[in-house]
Amino acid sequence: MIRHVVLFAWTSEATDKQKQQVAEELRALPPLITGLRSFQVGPDVGLIEGNFDFALVADFDDADSYLAYRNHPAHRAVVEQVIDPVAKQRVAVQYET
Amino acid sequence: MIRHVVLFAWTSEATDKQKQQVAEELRALPPLITGLRSFQVGPDVGLIEGNFDFALVADFDDADSYLAYRNHPAHRAVVEQVIDPVAKQRVAVQYET
Repeated sequence: MIRHVVLFAWTSEATDKQKQQVAEELRALPPLITGLRSFQVGPDVGLIEGNFDFALVADFDDADSYLAYRNHPAHRAVVEQVIDPVAKQRVAVQYET
Repeated sequence: MIRHVVLFAWTSEATDKQKQQVAEELRALPPLITGLRSFQVGPDVGLIEGNFDFALVADFDDADSYLAYRNHPAHRAVVEQVIDPVAKQRVAVQYET
C-alpha cells in the first residue's frame, strides 16, 4: 500500500471560505478514484506554533493507483482552481505502509 | 481523534545509516506511548521529483495524548540525538479525524 501525505501552508490572503472550499472539494474526490483505500483531510488544530495549515493523508492500493489519482482530471481541477490560488507552500511524501 | 503528520527533508550529508536509524528508533516508540492508536513512518518511495524525504503519521486519542507523546523523554531523545542532526526541514500538522 502507498500512503500519500501532503501538507500545505496557505497564503496570508487566503480567506476562510477559500480554505473551506479546499476541504470540501477534496472530500468530494474519493468516489471518483480507483484503488483508494482511505482519504482524510483537515485543517491544523492550532496546538503548535509554526505548523503548516492543512493536511491530506490518502492510502492507495499501489503506486499506479496513486499516480492515477494524481493525474485524474477531477483532482487536477481542484488543484488548479481551488488549491493553487491559496497555497504558499506544499510538501509531500509517498511511502509504503 | 488527533492525527499528527510530519514530513522531513534530510540534509545532503545525512547517511543511509542515519536515515535508517531515524526509522528504527521512531518505530520503537509506540509501546511507550499512552493513547496512541496507530503510528507509521517511512521514507519517500521516489515517485515524484521535489518531494520531502520521510513521513510520520500517528493517530492519538486526543490532543492531550499527542502532547504527552511530543514531550515524552524517549521521543525527545530520538528527536535531539537522531533526527535533529540530519533534518534540513521539518513541517507538521495536527488535524482532527
